[in-house]
Amino acid sequence: MFADVSMPKGFKCAGIAAGIKASGAKDMALVFSELPASAAGVFTTNQVCAAPVKVCREHLEHGVARAIVMNSGVANACTGAEGIVAAKEMAAEAARLIGCEPQEVFVCSTGKIGPQLPLQKIVAGIGKLFDAALAASVQQTAEAMMTTDTRPKVAVAEFGVGGKAVKIVGLAKGAGMIEPNMATMLSYIATDAAVGQHALQNALKAAVDQSFNRISVDGDQSTNDTVLALANGAAGNAPLDEDAEAWAVFCRELGRVCFELAMMIVHDGEGADKFVTVNVSGAESDADAELAARAVANSMLNKTAWAGTYPDWGRIMDAIGYSKARVVEERTDIAYDGVPAVKGGIRSAVAQEELIRVVSQTDFAINIELHLGEGKATVYTCNCTEAYVRINY
Amino acid sequence: MFADVSMPKGFKCAGIAAGIKASGAKDMALVFSELPASAAGVFTTNQVCAAPVKVCREHLEHGVARAIVMNSGVANACTGAEGIVAAKEMAAEAARLIGCEPQEVFVCSTGKIGPQLPLQKIVAGIGKLFDAALAASVQQTAEAMMTTDTRPKVAVAEFGVGGKAVKIVGLAKGAGMIEPNMATMLSYIATDAAVGQHALQNALKAAVDQSFNRISVDGDQSTNDTVLALANGAAGNAPLDEDAEAWAVFCRELGRVCFELAMMIVHDGEGADKFVTVNVSGAESDADAELAARAVANSMLNKTAWAGTYPDWGRIMDAIGYSKARVVEERTDIAYDGVPAVKGGIRSAVAQEELIRVVSQTDFAINIELHLGEGKATVYTCNCTEAYVRINY
Repeated sequence: MFADVSMPKGFKCAGIAAGIKASGAKDMALVFSELPASAAGVFTTNQVCAAPVKVCREHLEHGVARAIVMNSGVANACTGAEGIVAAKEMAAEAARLIGCEPQEVFVCSTGKIGPQLPLQKIVAGIGKLFDAALAASVQQTAEAMMTTDTRPKVAVAEFGVGGKAVKIVGLAKGAGMIEPNMATMLSYIATDAAVGQHALQNALKAAVDQSFNRISVDGDQSTNDTVLALANGAAGNAPLDEDAEAWAVFCRELGRVCFELAMMIVHDGEGADKFVTVNVSGAESDADAELAARAVANSMLNKTAWAGTYPDWGRIMDAIGYSKARVVEERTDIAYDGVPAVKGGIRSAVAQEELIRVVSQTDFAINIELHLGEGKATVYTCNCTEAYVRINY
Repeated sequence: MFADVSMPKGFKCAGIAAGIKASGAKDMALVFSELPASAAGVFTTNQVCAAPVKVCREHLEHGVARAIVMNSGVANACTGAEGIVAAKEMAAEAARLIGCEPQEVFVCSTGKIGPQLPLQKIVAGIGKLFDAALAASVQQTAEAMMTTDTRPKVAVAEFGVGGKAVKIVGLAKGAGMIEPNMATMLSYIATDAAVGQHALQNALKAAVDQSFNRISVDGDQSTNDTVLALANGAAGNAPLDEDAEAWAVFCRELGRVCFELAMMIVHDGEGADKFVTVNVSGAESDADAELAARAVANSMLNKTAWAGTYPDWGRIMDAIGYSKARVVEERTDIAYDGVPAVKGGIRSAVAQEELIRVVSQTDFAINIELHLGEGKATVYTCNCTEAYVRINY
């Protein structure tokens, strides 16, 4: 699928089986920069967060990184002081092999909450990862990140900055919960562009806000969600910051990589077979529009209606009504793709068959116009099928 | 089931088939007081609300009522000006038969959102309801309120006030969405106690806060939710108000009736076969405890874990962590019934089999102690099975 994708200059990656997953599937991944890279990170806002998230936050203060090491199968969450020691040990082992400071290594875990990391397997796995890194492919690395994902997720951008060819490669694993445990979204962005640390952090934050933060599979927020970006400068461009001429181009391309990965995550939502874009416009503010869009996207009633090919706009009216966004029933219009279902809060004259035709598709949009102002927002979601419930039993 | 329950003195009730539901099942109900009764009401806070809710709010200002007329099958929601006219017509027709002001009649609808009320059938149905009212049973009335409910819901309290025998009868229909549409919870409380209107409103509000507002089936809030109470004074007691000696007794019994009905609703949650009590204690405030309990109760990950008999306390830690309640991971304890699963944020030494034994039951409690203060709250919920998804297709 991504067999022909290679990492940006100066990066290696690897994905291997370290024996953490009982299935024998690949369960450790590495993203390694041959040069010290500017580092940026965005993490879960959950008050309960995994040990590797705590360690990453601390290491991010250092601002420069050489590697990301991750395992799937065990989340190292709710593991107390022992979990912190294990996450630091994981970073230290990679740092020892690289010959860098432990703060220059980020660590991530995803999988079952509660158990301690199998540190012996992890340490042996780190050795295997570095052995594999010269030969390993981006696809194998993305595969090692998977849990309930059905396919690896990779996105690429290539563009010029001041006459130099620059590349961004992003890897991700899905939301949807990890069988049989937690929703976790992990993504690693590697670029050979030279980018100032502060500017990279701002660019990543903005890109995440418009991509990973705009998707909803089930409304549960993980303890482990992490997005990391490393920029190692191997492209040889003059370092980018927010004043640089090419800054807008870099941000746009970074945003596009994050957005593509986020869309892959929703498309691969647990048990889902429909991709739904919820657009809200005419809200009093963008924040209000987002509240309304999220209420619709997260509603189990809407997700099951879409699964049943049932164009039940009443459930959409209901969801925007209980959202914290200001809504005036009598002004609200709703369309399924371009087919109007609601005009001024009551049903339009359109035939039900027209609406059924839209929700029969595997990809459609719900367009909500509130007629209260200029605010707008889009959230991407999926349907909820019986398979979702089975996966999370 | 409730064949031997009769209404309080001075009340009649009826449930009949008026041809609104295509199945031919009973679809209209009446609660009628022979005397003018003090009236109280609590309604959905959804900004999008049904025409009958708007009409009830208006009629409640009158403070005195004679009847509640309801239909199932069509929600009369998102029906614009025509829907308001129909709801008022429904009240006016009942008022004409009673010989009272239209403001003395409350109307409710539940069912599909969007279509207009079939007013001809409704008007004919109101006639049938009054014809039936002398002979009709509480059970038939509760049956006529049902939509996806699998059984009627009735609760009774009998007690003394100042030497007079007083009775409260409550009827309800469930949350869980109405096939194939909206979640709606309706409940009617009739009592022959004499109660001042203002005091009755306060008592009802307090009772609802601790009962119907403490249950969660799917987190979706309906456009039609309505709880109404009528107190007609036929018991002959000296009118109760908040200064009365028996006030606490009346409030306790009203609370018990509402609580029993609320528990029946959760037990009959769509597709559910497990009843779960979520207790949070040690929060910084009661409000914080409620936020944490609701996050756990509404989490699809928790509901599906319970369906799968999977004691996944990590999902509980996750939910309290993303709730808006203050949580300190390292202080948190979680027990399944009396079996400790988490101590100080990490897993206890208890064997997994012990926890599985608890979640194998059809009725168990999740007890969460935050060790941050004195705040506590309880929310009642149910599991989410594949059947829930099927029902809402």
